[in-house]
Amino acid sequence: MLPSPWSTLIKAGERLDDLAYRGRHLLQREEGFCFSLDAVLLAHFARDSLKKRDRLLDLGTGTGVLPLFLIDIVKDIWAIERQAEMADIARRNVMGNALEERIHILHGDYRRLDEYISRETFDAVISNPPYFPVGEGEISPVSSIALARHECTATLADTVQAARFALRFGGHFYLVHRASRLMDIFERLHTVKLEPKRLRFVHPFVDAPADLVLLEARVGGKAGLVVESPLVVRERSGAYTREVAMYYA
Amino acid sequence: MLPSPWSTLIKAGERLDDLAYRGRHLLQREEGFCFSLDAVLLAHFARDSLKKRDRLLDLGTGTGVLPLFLIDIVKDIWAIERQAEMADIARRNVMGNALEERIHILHGDYRRLDEYISRETFDAVISNPPYFPVGEGEISPVSSIALARHECTATLADTVQAARFALRFGGHFYLVHRASRLMDIFERLHTVKLEPKRLRFVHPFVDAPADLVLLEARVGGKAGLVVESPLVVRERSGAYTREVAMYYA
Repeated sequence: MLPSPWSTLIKAGERLDDLAYRGRHLLQREEGFCFSLDAVLLAHFARDSLKKRDRLLDLGTGTGVLPLFLIDIVKDIWAIERQAEMADIARRNVMGNALEERIHILHGDYRRLDEYISRETFDAVISNPPYFPVGEGEISPVSSIALARHECTATLADTVQAARFALRFGGHFYLVHRASRLMDIFERLHTVKLEPKRLRFVHPFVDAPADLVLLEARVGGKAGLVVESPLVVRERSGAYTREVAMYYA
Repeated sequence: MLPSPWSTLIKAGERLDDLAYRGRHLLQREEGFCFSLDAVLLAHFARDSLKKRDRLLDLGTGTGVLPLFLIDIVKDIWAIERQAEMADIARRNVMGNALEERIHILHGDYRRLDEYISRETFDAVISNPPYFPVGEGEISPVSSIALARHECTATLADTVQAARFALRFGGHFYLVHRASRLMDIFERLHTVKLEPKRLRFVHPFVDAPADLVLLEARVGGKAGLVVESPLVVRERSGAYTREVAMYYA
């Protein structure tokens, strides 16, 4: 039995997941790309510095999971998604959670962001973009998964360019990406005068290399980077660490 | 009672410290800049990838502490120091530990490294350089401390340039620096085609921001960075963590 109003919103091949956050739920494709821990970590990382008056843009929102985690701490959110089917799910997720007045889903390609929004009108931009350059990692035969994981369409450079286009002077950019791409990330940010202010590395275990990096950069920020305490996902036992378990509580 | 042959080597205003490593000792100025945990961490970080046939260069060796920790795992070491008094102490430290045949102290300025060594003749370069740009942090009235801590003479750019000059193609560069300078470090390395291969952040406590970063870069290396497990210095109790305590065992 689905909670109301989801029974009228769900389509064939979709499932409804409980976000364990403010009673919110999320429709996802049963065989498509599902939101992962990465999005949860990025949302919590961004919460530390987003402000109640901020207008936030989500680049490549997928099923719209980041807006559902962040809408309560900002003024409103615009979220763009290139895949029509994903944008459709995102819209229904906004409706199902009764957030149509504050979360706006745009179906479009953020490589041409100027067709959808005005330049430098956002206080903050967030993105959990495709991680893998084409030619690296296995390409999924399910095209929505391939587009979400691989840089088939948007590359890191595209994502950074779009963020810079949208952000006002002094605005903040939040990104999760593979730790191994750090040098590339810094170079791209430098090119558009986005100054890294805060980094947090995500380690699967305390004695393992980082797989992900969470980053906050600022338009026109002064130099001065803080590398925060390591974010360790699991105890040696395999259970989530206290910090990560709290994200799901 | 000083161990032999130190009684003949020590000068007024100096003290002799036990390195707790292979019976080695180190003369330092009683009121000068003393080697710190940073050097110990850097030595251990470099040990993981230095090779027995490597010719190693130490930029700004101070009292020569890094060579004393690393000579056993490489072929030979050249170490340059600009301050005459420090270079003199470094030479006596090499003599006192009977390593004159394999550690060579050069008194000179590594901003003019071409006057002392030939281009691209080293397999590895290591440096624990001054950390603080002039104008930041308190300048010590003791000039040897000021020169060791502040970029009065050598800047980060100078250190990276000197490393690149000395390294053969494929050679490795090991650096400890302030974590907050990471973006600047990456830019400098990129300029001379030194590719970061390995990073390790040093956190005073597990829940504190990193203060230092240990870095290995390679001349002409392929992209592909590993961010290693965090190096945590102290337990909450204030005692060294097991890893750091082992460095002193």
